Amino acid sequence: MKILIINGPNLNLLGKRQPSIYGNKSFEEYIKEIQSDGVSLSLYQSNIEGEIINALHASKADGIILNAGGYTHTSVAIRDAVSAIEIPVVEVHISNISARETFRHESLISPVSVGCIFGFGMMGYELAIAYFLKSANK
Amino acid sequence: MKILIINGPNLNLLGKRQPSIYGNKSFEEYIKEIQSDGVSLSLYQSNIEGEIINALHASKADGIILNAGGYTHTSVAIRDAVSAIEIPVVEVHISNISARETFRHESLISPVSVGCIFGFGMMGYELAIAYFLKSANK
Amino acid sequence: MKILIINGPNLNLLGKRQPSIYGNKSFEEYIKEIQSDGVSLSLYQSNIEGEIINALHASKADGIILNAGGYTHTSVAIRDAVSAIEIPVVEVHISNISARETFRHESLISPVSVGCIFGFGMMGYELAIAYFLKSANK
Amino acid sequence: MKILIINGPNLNLLGKRQPSIYGNKSFEEYIKEIQSDGVSLSLYQSNIEGEIINALHASKADGIILNAGGYTHTSVAIRDAVSAIEIPVVEVHISNISARETFRHESLISPVSVGCIFGFGMMGYELAIAYFLKSANK
Amino acid sequence: MKILIINGPNLNLLGKRQPSIYGNKSFEEYIKEIQSDGVSLSLYQSNIEGEIINALHASKADGIILNAGGYTHTSVAIRDAVSAIEIPVVEVHISNISARETFRHESLISPVSVGCIFGFGMMGYELAIAYFLKSANK
Amino acid sequence: MKILIINGPNLNLLGKRQPSIYGNKSFEEYIKEIQSDGVSLSLYQSNIEGEIINALHASKADGIILNAGGYTHTSVAIRDAVSAIEIPVVEVHISNISARETFRHESLISPVSVGCIFGFGMMGYELAIAYFLKSANK
Amino acid sequence: MKILIINGPNLNLLGKRQPSIYGNKSFEEYIKEIQSDGVSLSLYQSNIEGEIINALHASKADGIILNAGGYTHTSVAIRDAVSAIEIPVVEVHISNISARETFRHESLISPVSVGCIFGFGMMGYELAIAYFLKSANK
Amino acid sequence: MKILIINGPNLNLLGKRQPSIYGNKSFEEYIKEIQSDGVSLSLYQSNIEGEIINALHASKADGIILNAGGYTHTSVAIRDAVSAIEIPVVEVHISNISARETFRHESLISPVSVGCIFGFGMMGYELAIAYFLKSANK
Amino acid sequence: MKILIINGPNLNLLGKRQPSIYGNKSFEEYIKEIQSDGVSLSLYQSNIEGEIINALHASKADGIILNAGGYTHTSVAIRDAVSAIEIPVVEVHISNISARETFRHESLISPVSVGCIFGFGMMGYELAIAYFLKSANK
Amino acid sequence: MKILIINGPNLNLLGKRQPSIYGNKSFEEYIKEIQSDGVSLSLYQSNIEGEIINALHASKADGIILNAGGYTHTSVAIRDAVSAIEIPVVEVHISNISARETFRHESLISPVSVGCIFGFGMMGYELAIAYFLKSANK
Amino acid sequence: MKILIINGPNLNLLGKRQPSIYGNKSFEEYIKEIQSDGVSLSLYQSNIEGEIINALHASKADGIILNAGGYTHTSVAIRDAVSAIEIPVVEVHISNISARETFRHESLISPVSVGCIFGFGMMGYELAIAYFLKSANK
Amino acid sequence: MKILIINGPNLNLLGKRQPSIYGNKSFEEYIKEIQSDGVSLSLYQSNIEGEIINALHASKADGIILNAGGYTHTSVAIRDAVSAIEIPVVEVHISNISARETFRHESLISPVSVGCIFGFGMMGYELAIAYFLKSANK
Repeated sequence: MKILIINGPNLNLLGKRQPSIYGNKSFEEYIKEIQSDGVSLSLYQSNIEGEIINALHASKADGIILNAGGYTHTSVAIRDAVSAIEIPVVEVHISNISARETFRHESLISPVSVGCIFGFGMMGYELAIAYFLKSANK
Repeated sequence: MKILIINGPNLNLLGKRQPSIYGNKSFEEYIKEIQSDGVSLSLYQSNIEGEIINALHASKADGIILNAGGYTHTSVAIRDAVSAIEIPVVEVHISNISARETFRHESLISPVSVGCIFGFGMMGYELAIAYFLKSANK
Repeated sequence: MKILIINGPNLNLLGKRQPSIYGNKSFEEYIKEIQSDGVSLSLYQSNIEGEIINALHASKADGIILNAGGYTHTSVAIRDAVSAIEIPVVEVHISNISARETFRHESLISPVSVGCIFGFGMMGYELAIAYFLKSANK
Repeated sequence: MKILIINGPNLNLLGKRQPSIYGNKSFEEYIKEIQSDGVSLSLYQSNIEGEIINALHASKADGIILNAGGYTHTSVAIRDAVSAIEIPVVEVHISNISARETFRHESLISPVSVGCIFGFGMMGYELAIAYFLKSANK
Repeated sequence: MKILIINGPNLNLLGKRQPSIYGNKSFEEYIKEIQSDGVSLSLYQSNIEGEIINALHASKADGIILNAGGYTHTSVAIRDAVSAIEIPVVEVHISNISARETFRHESLISPVSVGCIFGFGMMGYELAIAYFLKSANK
Repeated sequence: MKILIINGPNLNLLGKRQPSIYGNKSFEEYIKEIQSDGVSLSLYQSNIEGEIINALHASKADGIILNAGGYTHTSVAIRDAVSAIEIPVVEVHISNISARETFRHESLISPVSVGCIFGFGMMGYELAIAYFLKSANK
Repeated sequence: MKILIINGPNLNLLGKRQPSIYGNKSFEEYIKEIQSDGVSLSLYQSNIEGEIINALHASKADGIILNAGGYTHTSVAIRDAVSAIEIPVVEVHISNISARETFRHESLISPVSVGCIFGFGMMGYELAIAYFLKSANK
Repeated sequence: MKILIINGPNLNLLGKRQPSIYGNKSFEEYIKEIQSDGVSLSLYQSNIEGEIINALHASKADGIILNAGGYTHTSVAIRDAVSAIEIPVVEVHISNISARETFRHESLISPVSVGCIFGFGMMGYELAIAYFLKSANK
Repeated sequence: MKILIINGPNLNLLGKRQPSIYGNKSFEEYIKEIQSDGVSLSLYQSNIEGEIINALHASKADGIILNAGGYTHTSVAIRDAVSAIEIPVVEVHISNISARETFRHESLISPVSVGCIFGFGMMGYELAIAYFLKSANK
Repeated sequence: MKILIINGPNLNLLGKRQPSIYGNKSFEEYIKEIQSDGVSLSLYQSNIEGEIINALHASKADGIILNAGGYTHTSVAIRDAVSAIEIPVVEVHISNISARETFRHESLISPVSVGCIFGFGMMGYELAIAYFLKSANK
Repeated sequence: MKILIINGPNLNLLGKRQPSIYGNKSFEEYIKEIQSDGVSLSLYQSNIEGEIINALHASKADGIILNAGGYTHTSVAIRDAVSAIEIPVVEVHISNISARETFRHESLISPVSVGCIFGFGMMGYELAIAYFLKSANK
Repeated sequence: MKILIINGPNLNLLGKRQPSIYGNKSFEEYIKEIQSDGVSLSLYQSNIEGEIINALHASKADGIILNAGGYTHTSVAIRDAVSAIEIPVVEVHISNISARETFRHESLISPVSVGCIFGFGMMGYELAIAYFLKSANK
């Protein structure tokens, strides 16, 4: 099973800035740790909205985990891309976006995603992978 | 590890009505299936808002999974109960609430929960259990 | 034909308070007067939101007349219960809710009801019964 | 007892278009069928907002049943005419307007009507007639 | 100097209904009383939005006094007609519209009128005539 | 192919007022110029909302070009008429309504039209005719 | 008959700044010109909100003409003062406030005034005086 | 003089949780301390909205002090119960609700209460009792 | 203990106007009556927003009771003054502001006050004094 | 005459996905078909907002047809680019955006375009070309 | 070059209260320090809205620096005064108002100012002076 | 001291288009002129949102001057990048954004910037540099 993780803007800073909060492990190292049997994980990160759309179009994965960062709340174009492809997309946010500023409460991506996992920190990615594995075994 | 699942209004109908959609397994049967090692699951369901608050106050669990059903969008009182107790609460919804009517988009419970899992059907409860197990092992 | 009338909060006060306005007949006495051939009327009243949901779930009637009182404007949970059952529900309000405070203008129950009868006083219940009789004879 | 039915814009199409939905009976034929003892029914239909106002001004009926169609949501002028006359007006809509587009949820006519009957199809007119008969017999 | 008074919907009822409030003088009689030297007053009343537009298009007056009644708050079309002609238009309302229901606070006609006179009862028409006379003498 | 152009309120003033802006050709003369092979154009203009509804109901054309003028933003009734008939309707506006006052940004007609052509001046009518010809040739 | 004109903030600049627009007559000179038989006019101007309230409290006039300038849209306190006194108050604005910025459309003073005269330039004061004279003669 | 204190959801936790903030005295103990001559205090607490309504209906007290907790902002039904009974109700909140989240700023109970006392901690109840005593002595 | 009462605009009219409602005692007389042991009461009243700010800055009292009248809903500047000083401020309103016009529902002063007492008439001042005495004795 | 078509995000998928809806012709093939005498058509497509801005800046065409896809509703920057250049821009959308989700109703591009063509499918591009040809021949 | 600094409500407290935040230098001392060649600085402070308007009217300066404090967000009257005079006005705020409460985000003064300088602490005044010097040298 | 100026979309057109307004100096030439002792200025311009984020991440400057152009009002992602880095960012706009269209009034960047300088034309950049120099010297 091939799963693609797409991380949006500023998520390249994980593990590089504010180590007291996020630790000093890079996302690449984190991904290695959570590799599990039967799953082939790959990662794409971009700060550019249109490149995220390109990555969604080009993907051949069985499932996509999308954390669109700040584009979550403003990008009709990424939403349209998620709608246009046939691969199931799970939306993940590291923080609990409903407990932050009002403009982060509404996600344009959520209504076109399979499901949403918010607020569990890095563990949210693992839960999304667990979902894909479980639903493949049904 | 003791986990309490609290289901709110109308969720007692699962498996009893509309079997073509939800199957004909009751929630009680479903819970037996997802019992896993190291976890003791219990279930409380009520259609009465205040009884859900009572259950939150009375619980001695290590973690609570709360699907407050229709009270999700209107109950300041349940929100206050979640804030008042010290047990971590994970919010689950079977459907993807952001893809339904506008009045279901905002959850009063989300900002005081540890995290949110929406739209994965019954599997959402399993992901929440997985979260509690993973975070206990950290 | 069995018809269940469900009255919500504060409607137990009818005939007991403010007799100059509502007369001094209780709702139970009123129901006896409007019994007509071919209809078996029963009444359930509760001030508790969740008990109204329970009554909707448990009913075996051919039709339900629901006056949800103050819960009309706030209860997503009662709305969901009306959606979940298969018995047709007619919404009745004694007063003309659109002529009162703004927060009474929108009913969460209306969109999932068969139809709405507002502002005809106690006679609204009789019109709802007339509807069930007429539609049974079609 | 004289009752005037006033139908607003597009309601002249009933029975002429979309027979699979509305049947192929014209509104005039429908009225003949629902004539009952002690009631003299008459019908006025116009697509012109001001002519509906004229009809309200000119009426000598004991009761008026008004289905203002699309003017329901925008016509302060028809509302003012209903307020200005002394004949009681019952508002009827064939469809359940609260279950349609948002701009149909608020009726400018409702607050100045005796009562509202929405969503019962053509039967709504009969319920309104039943109301006038019952209230005349009080 | 020729002045045309255009009265909109329901204003034909003045002096005919509710004499205790509005007296029992018709608007035609009222106009005769306020005829003054140097002014030729004429009156047009219609309940039909489009006929008011027609009257605005056709007028050859030196000034128009417009009381658009209930169309004041909804008629973009009358507003456009006032904009399209070159005759100055003064807007009059008998009642103080800002002290009534919220939907009467905003007038679509006001921004394209020369000026507005609200709340002075029938005397508002006389003040408007006074304006036209004074401005002709400048 | 028969095409009916329906022009709403104030559009009868085209070519008669403000010649420096709109030229001094009447709409009737303009239509003669744009007659093209295979198309039979007819024109209906009214300032009366309800007469536009009547014209929509009565039409036997293969396509309708509707410029509802100021009624565009307020007329639920014209919208309902467009929905009720089977002839395809193209919405045209001479000006770019989105660049004018806020209350002109939303059209009630647009969602029930085949398509919208805004801002091209008189040429908008020609583009609409071009559409009908092209789609007939598909 | 004693009439007090109260002018609010910035109105002391009339006739002193922008003479090409407002002329170079001061408001004091203007008042002298419009003195008419049977009327004793006095003027109070202040840029200070509370002093306007003081002037309203202290007045012994038979009528007050109030142009509250920029306080029109923000001063609940002046509104309360107008309500608290028994002298009739007519609201005047030199410009047509509904044709200016949105925040000038709503006047807090209007609902508690006898009537409103907007947009007639300096002549608005004369119309207000005309009103007081006419109503005294009724 | 009999005074009933009704405490709504989560207020049973006072003195049991978060002792550093609220002390470790239970509300029952607190009530004993504030007993004063001429007043008979009783307490009712429930987490269930409808039971609070029942308690309001059933009360024979001379005055009621109501802290409806989270239901304050959402319960039309409790508001209606306060309106329906004749006993004067004083609304108390321990915290200053206007300084908390926006959804706590509006109280549905306030407009139907005698008066409101917010933000004085437990002392708010004492002030409410003082009010009842003072008004009885007038 | 020194307590300063600051009364805002129009409150100087208490006891002078509308004696049937407010009695004919002036506020100064009222204050004499409510003097109690251990409290030295002083009064400042102004209709001028900035003078209220000056009074707040200059005060040496142990507690301030502020009834800002109409400035309550509009004055960010008074709010800032309350925040800037260290003396505790209790907000009092004679009427129940939440039961009046919508623009009186939100107080800019409340969030920066110790607590709020609304709707108890003149007795509200006494309750505020009671609060200062009780909290001094803790 | 040189015309540049700029297609925004996800429009590269036309003809590649969902052939049952959009056919299996690519946009490049489509453009070849609609080449007509006197017009040189070129196409630029990008999923990246800023590249669309670059293309607008760089263009030497006589006219631009812009379908900004999902950026239509969110991009102030593209709007500013359209304003900054002197080439006339016609806005095209394949679907009728006013009949879709609310967030697609407002276009930031429309107010700065020459005109708008919405809802005619691929034919919208041909109508835009027709406009450029017609206006060149004037 | 003469520059007038106008400070609004509560800014007289600078250097007097909260010295740990604002230091213990008064604004008068601060001004002495920032005197520079070619500039004559003067200061006016008032807590009274209308006196600020008076100061704006009376000024003979070459430039005005205005920090209207809490009146920034509520004073149409000060805005009008800024518009009415010909001296250029620069708006300064010590704090970053967009990072504070929502009601501080919109400034009524900004649209009529030359420019805005927010959030640089006391240094904002120096930057405003720098602006006046630089623009005088152009 | 190293200062990086980041200019967003369409700002590459400065000095190239509309020379009558902006002059015909390019931004690069302008920067050379304002070089001053002790400051090393560099410039980055991009029309691509994500590249601006990249530039913020990569910068080693002591201070950043950011003019995000049209992205100012829509980019949560740039806001997050400004928050994530430790270099102080000053926001500059050439025009007075509060005096333009409503959608330009709110800046997502402002709340996370050190301070804001709007409306001073090109001179805004010089004021920002002055700020960095002054604060380095404190």
